[in-house]
Amino acid sequence: MRKCIATVSVSGTLPEKLAAIAAAGFDGVELFENDLLACMLSPEEVRLRAADLGLSIDLYQPFRDFEAMPSVDLRRAEHKFRVMERLGARTLLVCSNVSPEAIDDDELAAAHLRLLAERAADYGIRIAYEALAWGRHVNDYLHAWRIVRMADHPNLGVCLDSFHIFSRGGDPIGIEAIPGEKIFFLQLADAPLLAMDVLQWSRHYRVFPGQGAFDVAGLVRHVLATGYTGPLSLEVFNDHFRQADADRTARDGMRSLIALEQAVGGEEHPATPTGFAFAELADDGSVREMLAALGFAPAGPYPGGHAEVWRHGGARVLLTRTGRAPELTAIGLHGPDPAGAVRHATRLLAPARPGTDAIVAPDGTEILFTGPADRDGAAAAGAGEITHIDHVALTQPWHHFEEAALFYRSVLGLRPQESLEVPDPYGLLRSQAMSAGEVRLVLNLAPGGAGGAQHVAFAATDLLAVARRLRAEHPGLLLPIPGNYYDDLEARYDVDPALRELGVLYDRDEHGEFLHLYTVTVGGVFFEIVQRIGGYRGFGAVNAPIRLAVQRASRSLKMSA
Amino acid sequence: MRKCIATVSVSGTLPEKLAAIAAAGFDGVELFENDLLACMLSPEEVRLRAADLGLSIDLYQPFRDFEAMPSVDLRRAEHKFRVMERLGARTLLVCSNVSPEAIDDDELAAAHLRLLAERAADYGIRIAYEALAWGRHVNDYLHAWRIVRMADHPNLGVCLDSFHIFSRGGDPIGIEAIPGEKIFFLQLADAPLLAMDVLQWSRHYRVFPGQGAFDVAGLVRHVLATGYTGPLSLEVFNDHFRQADADRTARDGMRSLIALEQAVGGEEHPATPTGFAFAELADDGSVREMLAALGFAPAGPYPGGHAEVWRHGGARVLLTRTGRAPELTAIGLHGPDPAGAVRHATRLLAPARPGTDAIVAPDGTEILFTGPADRDGAAAAGAGEITHIDHVALTQPWHHFEEAALFYRSVLGLRPQESLEVPDPYGLLRSQAMSAGEVRLVLNLAPGGAGGAQHVAFAATDLLAVARRLRAEHPGLLLPIPGNYYDDLEARYDVDPALRELGVLYDRDEHGEFLHLYTVTVGGVFFEIVQRIGGYRGFGAVNAPIRLAVQRASRSLKMSA
Repeated sequence: MRKCIATVSVSGTLPEKLAAIAAAGFDGVELFENDLLACMLSPEEVRLRAADLGLSIDLYQPFRDFEAMPSVDLRRAEHKFRVMERLGARTLLVCSNVSPEAIDDDELAAAHLRLLAERAADYGIRIAYEALAWGRHVNDYLHAWRIVRMADHPNLGVCLDSFHIFSRGGDPIGIEAIPGEKIFFLQLADAPLLAMDVLQWSRHYRVFPGQGAFDVAGLVRHVLATGYTGPLSLEVFNDHFRQADADRTARDGMRSLIALEQAVGGEEHPATPTGFAFAELADDGSVREMLAALGFAPAGPYPGGHAEVWRHGGARVLLTRTGRAPELTAIGLHGPDPAGAVRHATRLLAPARPGTDAIVAPDGTEILFTGPADRDGAAAAGAGEITHIDHVALTQPWHHFEEAALFYRSVLGLRPQESLEVPDPYGLLRSQAMSAGEVRLVLNLAPGGAGGAQHVAFAATDLLAVARRLRAEHPGLLLPIPGNYYDDLEARYDVDPALRELGVLYDRDEHGEFLHLYTVTVGGVFFEIVQRIGGYRGFGAVNAPIRLAVQRASRSLKMSA
Repeated sequence: MRKCIATVSVSGTLPEKLAAIAAAGFDGVELFENDLLACMLSPEEVRLRAADLGLSIDLYQPFRDFEAMPSVDLRRAEHKFRVMERLGARTLLVCSNVSPEAIDDDELAAAHLRLLAERAADYGIRIAYEALAWGRHVNDYLHAWRIVRMADHPNLGVCLDSFHIFSRGGDPIGIEAIPGEKIFFLQLADAPLLAMDVLQWSRHYRVFPGQGAFDVAGLVRHVLATGYTGPLSLEVFNDHFRQADADRTARDGMRSLIALEQAVGGEEHPATPTGFAFAELADDGSVREMLAALGFAPAGPYPGGHAEVWRHGGARVLLTRTGRAPELTAIGLHGPDPAGAVRHATRLLAPARPGTDAIVAPDGTEILFTGPADRDGAAAAGAGEITHIDHVALTQPWHHFEEAALFYRSVLGLRPQESLEVPDPYGLLRSQAMSAGEVRLVLNLAPGGAGGAQHVAFAATDLLAVARRLRAEHPGLLLPIPGNYYDDLEARYDVDPALRELGVLYDRDEHGEFLHLYTVTVGGVFFEIVQRIGGYRGFGAVNAPIRLAVQRASRSLKMSA
């Protein structure tokens, strides 16, 4: 299907927006009037600029507060039609009236819209009538369709917007009551579920499909069932997107539409990863030292020789020697079909490393696809204290959290788990867990985008034994935990006094229990060791504020920020 | 009155918070449990640290989901009492139950709270029961008082919180029904009026009294009428405050309480300014050139000799020569009593420049108080095209917008006018106009805190004549305005075609009309010339997106960012 995006969805001046949108491969745009008004280019020049970039202007918007007013103002409409002629735009979005003067009279609204459509027809222009979620009398898409049908003019149809439908709890199945040729335009946006005024929600918190909580794919299926052949168009108002790099946002939007098409078509992810093969870190020597203390041992060079493999049980860490402060640079993932995983990722615009089975995530982490876990790994598991990598926590770039979440969801096939805001001494940390099989990622967004270390969490079968050995043999290796934490923990639960003695953190959910501890931070990295007891599904997020405060107090994070 | 602040209101680790709170002159703190749990200091050490800083621990909080449960859990409470003993804290905040298991039974709640108070009495501890705005069954302060009176124990009283009262539209006059000795604690926060879920509103958008829309002073008057003698305590949850410098936030909170005490006492501002005496700019030569083009002429050195006065009609600009890019460094304000204005500012913690009548605003702008406007200025007005300074727009530092607004409100006595969010190509610009008499300020917060120029707006009696002269004599001096703007303007209003020809912007409100134009930007500064026709009260904010986009497109702002 043709793919469009509203100019309001990306940052910049109008020429910058058009360039970024074209570079991401879109076919056309919804032109926002404000972007035109503030632009020194004439409408004819904007049309040419767009055409040179291979973009059509599929919609001009918005035209407000027209229908069902005490008097009809066609002068303003004529003006828009003339501007649209100069732009070469053939569809005008008319959104349902929000004026306090609007009259609650469907017949009057239909009569006015018919007048507008008749005048529009003289210009070869179509009117797409949209029910705003906060429209004064018309706020439901079926109500808008009732009025359009009543007006009965070939140049009048409806515009459907997934945000306006879902934000009021509307059921999109009713779309199938509308003939496809009367759906003039389809605007797509997703959003997190927020308990707030719908206008504010709409203006500041929309995200691309797949980045929020709406079933946008389901809605599109209903639209396609009507015979609709128009474009899929993204219309997103988001404070972060307004500030972010336009090229990056446009590419992110295109990825969202490609993933949406796959979801609409019922395509399964062809090669979802099954587990971690390794984590790779750049090392100045301090990681090596820490791994040795944790019980890891060198196991020779990685095939190709760029890194050294360190191994403990079934957990593997690759180290590359650098002069830089340690950081996590790559993760390796087991899966049934590495080449298929790369092909899938490339279709979703993930940059691939030529000649390898590696791609690069939005946060810069390289992801290498390897084959299924080998027998060696399985045999080694259980031999040591540490059995495998339980999860990896990645710090995400400011303004790009939604992009990262969609990337890991669509490219790797991970499913979103718990999403949290965790108090940090210097702000709130946003956290999103995602998983598929034994691959668990935690995406963290540090306050203001600064600071925040990455970490690799290893699983152990007997965490208290690990802790006992490490506290005895390597004092200073593990993050100290405040006694106040245990005073409180012991008031809540009957827990093993060894937790306090060994500085082990504790959580439980309805499925089981969770023990965990942290090393101190070196550079931008630290390690966690965890033990899942029973079916515990979380990541000990309740204890994250404790960890963050201790890390901040010890300034280990500040050094690396 | 004693002044306290909750540790959650400022950023940092607990020792950092305490140091910042003490430095700002507070008497005590509300200690948040999470701050204690994450701190390596024992409760005894925290008590000592606070005492060394001259701070008492006036409240420990929160204790949640206790009353009206199917069974009473005094074990958890005993634990808190022991921690409080070690801290030397004598009052525990118990907030109304939010658990789905809570039973809607006032008598049961009262019986449980009585049990708790009896146990607390053994430790010499008092229980302050607070109605959360989102409490499951108790969400109104008078309901909490009903339960406390029913429980009838000397160690049980209520805690009042201005946010919880105002956010549900409660009338604080009912406070006078509570005997002062049963009000155990008073928590103060203000907030902007937001249409959103009250829990989210409370957790992220609280601000200090005087920074929001609540009548906190009125509430405090009702509390004092009861005979309450406890502290005024600030409890603010705010995402910006969590990230901002702790010392600065604590000082801002103290200023808020001082201003609140003045407001409660009915004190008028002793010396509200009446008009602009001058704007002072650091100049590398380019401002001088621009002023000359605008018709300004040098008028000798400013008394003291640090700057040169440039004058046009009644408008004066002071220029200091620097090698730096031009910026606005100071404003001079006329007023009845410069020394009184400085004394008032100093009481409100504004840093004063010793030996002068100048203070420094949070954004770094110096504010000099001068006497009433002289006859010379009055006579000069009307002689030229420009008559006086109409307003000054100041760019505010990121995370400190509320601080700046409170500063200008309390220190200068300005009243808030319109508050807007204006789309800029690279984000949303937040704007707050404030005024008193002929002093008008516009505080702007650029997206992400980056970029955004300051400007001085001059008033003219015939803007079209000014524009005609400047366009003819100084091509390139004025910001070009897109033809698309006029296409739209002319569709909305019957306006003089000269507006388009001369690149003059237009707005109207119910009181009158507004004409304005802008110069290009030099360094971090540009000028505006405005004409108010009739009683127009705004600042042409509807046209700000046009200006911003043209400035961005011409990269003048980017150069200075």
